[in-house]
Formats: sequence, structure tokens, C-alpha cells
Amino acid sequence: MARTIKLAVVAGDGIGPEVVAEGLKVLDVVLAGSEVTVERTAFELGAKRWHETGETLTDDDLAAISTHDAILLGAVGDPTVPSGVLERGLLLKLRFALDHYVNLRPSRLYPGVPTPLANPGDVDFVVVREGTEGPYTGNGGALRVGTPHEIATEVSVNTAFGVERVVRDAFARAQARPRKKLTLVHKHNVLVNAGHLWRRTVEAVAAEFPEITVDYAHVDAVTIYMVTDPARFDVIVTDNLFGDIITDLAAAITGGIGLAASGNVNPSGAFPSMFEPVHGSAPDIAGQSKADPTAAVLSVALMLEHLGLPEQATRISDAVTADIAARDGSPRTTVEIGDALAARVAG
Amino acid sequence: MARTIKLAVVAGDGIGPEVVAEGLKVLDVVLAGSEVTVERTAFELGAKRWHETGETLTDDDLAAISTHDAILLGAVGDPTVPSGVLERGLLLKLRFALDHYVNLRPSRLYPGVPTPLANPGDVDFVVVREGTEGPYTGNGGALRVGTPHEIATEVSVNTAFGVERVVRDAFARAQARPRKKLTLVHKHNVLVNAGHLWRRTVEAVAAEFPEITVDYAHVDAVTIYMVTDPARFDVIVTDNLFGDIITDLAAAITGGIGLAASGNVNPSGAFPSMFEPVHGSAPDIAGQSKADPTAAVLSVALMLEHLGLPEQATRISDAVTADIAARDGSPRTTVEIGDALAARVAG
Ligand SMILES: CC(C)[C@H](C(=O)O)[C@@H](O)C(=O)O
Ligand SMILES: CC(C)[C@H](C(=O)O)[C@@H](O)C(=O)O
Repeated sequence: MARTIKLAVVAGDGIGPEVVAEGLKVLDVVLAGSEVTVERTAFELGAKRWHETGETLTDDDLAAISTHDAILLGAVGDPTVPSGVLERGLLLKLRFALDHYVNLRPSRLYPGVPTPLANPGDVDFVVVREGTEGPYTGNGGALRVGTPHEIATEVSVNTAFGVERVVRDAFARAQARPRKKLTLVHKHNVLVNAGHLWRRTVEAVAAEFPEITVDYAHVDAVTIYMVTDPARFDVIVTDNLFGDIITDLAAAITGGIGLAASGNVNPSGAFPSMFEPVHGSAPDIAGQSKADPTAAVLSVALMLEHLGLPEQATRISDAVTADIAARDGSPRTTVEIGDALAARVAG
Repeated sequence: MARTIKLAVVAGDGIGPEVVAEGLKVLDVVLAGSEVTVERTAFELGAKRWHETGETLTDDDLAAISTHDAILLGAVGDPTVPSGVLERGLLLKLRFALDHYVNLRPSRLYPGVPTPLANPGDVDFVVVREGTEGPYTGNGGALRVGTPHEIATEVSVNTAFGVERVVRDAFARAQARPRKKLTLVHKHNVLVNAGHLWRRTVEAVAAEFPEITVDYAHVDAVTIYMVTDPARFDVIVTDNLFGDIITDLAAAITGGIGLAASGNVNPSGAFPSMFEPVHGSAPDIAGQSKADPTAAVLSVALMLEHLGLPEQATRISDAVTADIAARDGSPRTTVEIGDALAARVAG
């Protein structure tokens, strides 16, 4: 049955456009000859637009993006723009406005991938990072800025509503995986208000999932486990900031952020979900065709899975697995890697 | 010149008393025959006291502890006590009441120590973690607890006063080290209020330290560098929560928390500083003489350095270096390791 996917493309800054181009190339190949077609709309958002117009993401942009079925995003952030402007005004605004409460970050150590760990073991877990609350809400402020009496606050906001929906999603994901294990990551011995809300919520939802083994680790201890025994993890559920921190570490131990994909998911379908590599805009290597587009390509696979096209998603991740296994360390350009992945997907 | 050090000993919970005993053993040996004597006072604080009396740290305890020159602490926390009670009521209360604004955590990869990293490089850095502000202040609260409308907040409080004094301390430490490098770790692209205060403060203080090379990394990126290139770090200055997280990771890559020492320092000397291993109370191995007391012994060395006894401090760290180089992986009890270190210090 013919189907058209309306895809909003936000290539963004730095290496964003380079890696997104390869993601789209692979997307075209995997859908070629199928009944699924993609209708793309490019959104010019990021540093260039901000410099020209002062705009990051207007209400009109948001309304236009919302009419799409999914969003593919490259990277946001540029050294010529004050820190925070694009991150909060564009990337986080998209995540919050489109209610992306499940920030999904799978970590898998592909066979043959170089890892900084001497004995990584069999690493295959997914972090379900809350995406619309915690210290990312933009609550807080500053007084007497620039004086010796300056005070600056950041408020982590956590609600039963927000915590419960993401915890429930994480349990459902654990239920669908063979090991059926869920680890809550927080710091409830210090952040007692938020921490106890998370803990009680996990305990309550656990009653509905009797097959799931549940455990808990403080975020500081998790960084230890990530380098000493990452194979212990199956599904991790955690808050927005802890999730940000531990998923970069997870990416590092599984071969680097060049391979780490993510989805900003609104499971209800009320808004389009957004798929993006975990890496940033990497201004130091932008424009040099040095970026590894694999994370962007794997983000396309996550997107296809989310859109109900698991067979196509698997073809892409199989192509990535095969390509990685064949890597011998000789350098390839962004386009060369994209071409190689596209060729493997084409079969 | 004869000198008496008044030492408050808070052995605490779990493995705390076991490792503190070895720390004190080594302390006695290193001072034997010198003109420095130690007058110890043990403070019964922790789970047992709380169960018996409901007290964590009374005003009287605090007043008594304050009359000492330094504090040696084992570990705080016990599974029979609700999470947060001892951490906030005892450990953090000490850090805050005694204004321990410099939480000092050196990380050095001793030759011969097993590390989870395949190619760690030459790791030798120190994290200066802010100790009296940030998300640890206990600001925030909860409303409608236990209902579907619960809201829980945690407020990170940052002041120019608090940030400047710790940044200044970190610069001074960088100045005293050969590489003269300082890295600010924060997340100023999201936590813009606190992050920009930290950034502006580092920029301002940098002007007074023209020899220091200053750079910046987001906390998430730091977890990547810790496993891919930890040798890049010299002095790191960061907030209370980020410091908590990255120092556990730093400990893990340099041989584990069995080796990580720390000082909670009040540089003004208005209050006694407190020295403690980074590891917690480890209830799972408590009472089995399995804990490695090396971190407690190295905390004693940090204490001696702080008290103006650098020669004695070096004798201890040299003993640790030698002991570690001689380790062949065969298991030793807590007491055996303490005895071995004491014997090496005795020479
Ligand atoms: C760029 C930044 C705002 C973002 C975040 O902190 O979420 C990034 O680090 C990520 O993990 O997607
Ligand atoms: C026990 C806990 C409160 C403490 C902290 O978070 O500071 C510990 O993790 C540490 O790093 O000393």
C-alpha cells in the first residue's frame, strides 16, 4: 500500500548538513522500489539564520514542522553564536514544544569497533532519557549579574505526570527485550525530592511488570559501571541531565559518538518525533568531510523503526554492522562512508 | 618543635571503620619518633547512632568537632536508614557547616595499577569540586507528594562569592603544577544562568594568572575525554554535582575507588578540613575485611599535606606507590594491606 512520509529536515550547523546528506542518501536507497515515498522539507535553522534574522525557531517554523511525520536533525550549535542561544532556542525548544519526553539512546558495541576499554564485554543497552523536565526546563534565573553579589539558580522540575510516562515507556521497552532488566539512575541520596519521586514511581510501575528485574544506581556509580562492567545494563531510565551525561560516556565506550544515534520520541504520536546523532556540530572539523555519518544513518534507522518500517530499519543497521566489521582504519570521507553504507543497503 | 594535632575521627558506616583503622595505623607510624603527636577524638556518628537516638549530627557534635585541627572520615550511608538521611544530615552537613568549599580529588594512575582503559596514557590531574553550593544546597521541595499531581524541585544555587573563591583556589593549584592548565567543566549551553556565572568568573580570574592555559568542556564531553584522553587534564574546576559524577569516573579509570582519596578543604582555616576516601560505605562488603584501605591511607596523606607536613605525606604516597607496584593480584585483607603500607612507611 502506497505511503508517503512527510519528513522535516533540519540539517543545522557545523557537520550537521554533511552527515544529514548521507542519512538521506541511505534513506532514499532503502526505500527505492518500495511503496513508501518520502516528501522532504528542508528547514533553514541554526547559526546562519540567527545571524541574518535574529530568529532561532519561530511559531511559524514550529507550526510548519508539526505537520510532518518525523524530523531528521543534524546538529545545532556554533561558536559564533553565544552559548545557549541555539541550544535552548532551537534544539531544546523543538524537544519541549513537540513533547519529546522519551529521549531514546541505544548503545551497542558493534563487533570490530575499537573501544577505549580493555575488556568491554557484550554491551547492548538502551538509555531512556526523560526529555521534557529536570534541569533542562529553563527554570531559574540570575540576580545582580556581573556584581560580586550575583546569584544564579537552575531549577530541576519533576512531575509525577512527567516521570510516570517515561518510566512506563522504559518498562515497556525492557519487557520487549530478552533480558528484561531496568535500572533507574538518579542521585536520590542528595537530590531527595526529585530522587524520591523517581524511586516511588519506578516502584509503583514495577508492580505492573512482574517479569522485569529492577535495580537502582546513583549516577556517579553508573560512570564506574560504564567502564568496568557496561554489560550489566539492559534498559536504563533516568532524568534529562543524568541522561545527557551518561549517554556521552556510553557512546564513548561503544566506539565513539560517530556511531551513536538517538530519537526524541513522542510516543503518543501527537507530535512528530525527531531523530538525530548524539554528536554535536563539531565546528572544528566542519566542512572538511571528516565527520563520520554513521550516527546520522543509524538515526534514520531508528526513525524507520518508529514509523513502523522495521524491515527497512534492520537493513540499515545490518549494513552498518557489515561496514564496521570491514573497517581497517584507513580514513574515509563523510561521503565515502555514506556511499559505502548506501551500497550495502542496496545489496 | 613539638606539635599536637587534634584529630576528629568519624569512622561512620559500613567499611568506614575498617578503612579508617588502617589510615590511623599508618598515621601513627609516619609520625612515630617525630615531634608531632596526634590527639584523637572518636565521634560516634552514622547509622547506629541514628537508630538509637534519631540524631545525625547535633549542634553539640558540630561544636566539638570544630575545635579540632582536622577530621578523618570513613564513609557515611547505610541501607537500614532511609536514603538521604545520613548523606544530608551528616556528611553534607559537615561539608556545609564547616564551609568545605574546596572538595579536592586528585587522580593519578599509579604505575602497575590495573585500569579498565586499554591505553590510559599518563594520567595525573586534580579535580577541584565546589563543595558548598550547586544542586547540593538542599533548596527545592515537593508538593502533593504521592499524588498524580506531585511536583518535586531541586534548586542549584550559585553565587559569585562561592564560585570565585573556588575558582581562585583552582587557579592557584594549577599555578603550582608543572603543566599549568585549568579546565572549567560545566554545561553552560543548557544551564545558562549558573554556567555563565562560572564562565565569566573563570575569565575574570584568568587575568590574574597569565601563565595558566584555560579551557572549557561540557560535562557530557568530559566523560568522553576521561576514557579516550584523560592525560589532557591537569586541574579541573567544576560544580558540586558535576564534580561528584566525574570524580567517580576519574577514580574508575585510575584503578578504582579503592585508591581515590579526597579532601574537603576550608582553605581559610576557619574550620577544620575533612579527609575521606571517595568510596562509600559499601554495605555489601562491610565487616568482611575485603575493603581496600588505600584510599583512606592516601586521605591521611592529603591531610598531612594540608596540615603543613608534606614530607610525611610524601612518605605515605611513596609507600602506596611501592605497594601498588608490588601487587600481584593475590587477595589481601584490609588489615594486611594496612600492615603492608605501615611497614613500608616505617621503612
Ligand atoms: C547540545 C545540547 C543542548 C544537547 C543536550 O544537552 O541535550 C546534547 O548534548 C545532547 O545530548 O543532545
Ligand atoms: C555520599 C554522597 C552524598 C557523596 C556526594 O554525593 O558528594 C559521595 O558520592 C561523594 O562523592 O563524596
